[in-house]
Amino acid sequence: MSVAEDLMIRLELMALQDRYVAAIDNDRIEEWPGFFVEDCLYEIVSRENEEAGLPAPVIHCDSARMLRDRVLALRHANIYEKPAYRHMVSGMEWRQEADGSYSGSSSYVVVNTSVEGESSIYQAGRYLDQVVRTEGGLRFRQKRCIYDTLRVQTLLAFPI
Amino acid sequence: MSVAEDLMIRLELMALQDRYVAAIDNDRIEEWPGFFVEDCLYEIVSRENEEAGLPAPVIHCDSARMLRDRVLALRHANIYEKPAYRHMVSGMEWRQEADGSYSGSSSYVVVNTSVEGESSIYQAGRYLDQVVRTEGGLRFRQKRCIYDTLRVQTLLAFPI
Amino acid sequence: MSVAEDLMIRLELMALQDRYVAAIDNDRIEEWPGFFVEDCLYEIVSRENEEAGLPAPVIHCDSARMLRDRVLALRHANIYEKPAYRHMVSGMEWRQEADGSYSGSSSYVVVNTSVEGESSIYQAGRYLDQVVRTEGGLRFRQKRCIYDTLRVQTLLAFPI
Repeated sequence: MSVAEDLMIRLELMALQDRYVAAIDNDRIEEWPGFFVEDCLYEIVSRENEEAGLPAPVIHCDSARMLRDRVLALRHANIYEKPAYRHMVSGMEWRQEADGSYSGSSSYVVVNTSVEGESSIYQAGRYLDQVVRTEGGLRFRQKRCIYDTLRVQTLLAFPI
Repeated sequence: MSVAEDLMIRLELMALQDRYVAAIDNDRIEEWPGFFVEDCLYEIVSRENEEAGLPAPVIHCDSARMLRDRVLALRHANIYEKPAYRHMVSGMEWRQEADGSYSGSSSYVVVNTSVEGESSIYQAGRYLDQVVRTEGGLRFRQKRCIYDTLRVQTLLAFPI
Repeated sequence: MSVAEDLMIRLELMALQDRYVAAIDNDRIEEWPGFFVEDCLYEIVSRENEEAGLPAPVIHCDSARMLRDRVLALRHANIYEKPAYRHMVSGMEWRQEADGSYSGSSSYVVVNTSVEGESSIYQAGRYLDQVVRTEGGLRFRQKRCIYDTLRVQTLLAFPI
């Protein structure tokens, strides 16, 4: 692969990541499942558990249908404090796998603003992604959010 | 538009955004008005007001001349605590409009370091941009900063 | 240089920056010296000292060998609290110098999560970089981290 091709795939993966976090940050979580292929894995898991080999994820969805169900649950739940996230993402690395898919990782920091208007760091961590090329463009086959931060709400967690 | 063209415009818009925040973060606010066309709109407005349809912006400038006046005011004011901002920007989305301009939005988090050397989140929010192509490159025709955070200084506010 | 060439160099510099912070954020500091040429300068210095012309850096390494020694020291030291950094980088500016190298600068915010699981802003500041093209791709000839934040650990500081 030429340097230019390599850079353009990087840019395409960055664009996917940007559109993904924009949908969440701008309260359009109905679009969130559409960033995944139907047969996908989405997880939020603590770094502590990940490193100890004890999965026990906060969220575990193994199909886009489960992601859509989750969106419905979040929209219809009587949530006391709806989050207002701003995802900052950096440090993207990627490589192409034998099957043509892309494995990638990025650092993320999610800043939340409470209903009282206080902005603070909600969660820092790392995305571990598998991305495939579909007729509709790049989609996540897997997205695992490994968070460093300890205190993470486990009830009705929003997408990261 | 081909995927490659689309990605190159994304990169060009990211470059504009990067140079814009660099001028502010590195205390070169004299360059700030130059990122706009003469007939422009720059606003800082709370998300609360934006969503309620009650503009009442903290800053409202409807020409580059007003931006230049603002820079002069900031430079000559006897400001007790000059900010030291670091703008983090992510989640860029854009589309081309019928007139050839680009509409874009991004999430931002501004970290400020006080004169005492404390770094903290000053403001989280969203840029809503309109960008046009000029002989001198891309320029903002409109930049609206919709902030999530409640407590924002309203007196002698610096550019976001 | 055409606009497209300019944008591709920007993307290449962004890729270098991303891979650099990923190595640090993901606890692979053994890779850190490899981002530099052998005859290099790496410094962490406070903005206060930098602006006063009083260098007195927290870290000063003037060869890749010193960077490698530093990694060994960090790995073998009995460190009470190993950091878990997430580097956010934005606002990249660059220009090509007469000798073909690239001078660049970026804003950074490093979020650290303590062993107790608290995520907070550890350091905000600015990278001042010199980058050269080698057979192995782009490398840093110089990287100076000018931090805004006051309280920075000076003992066994990790790479920024």
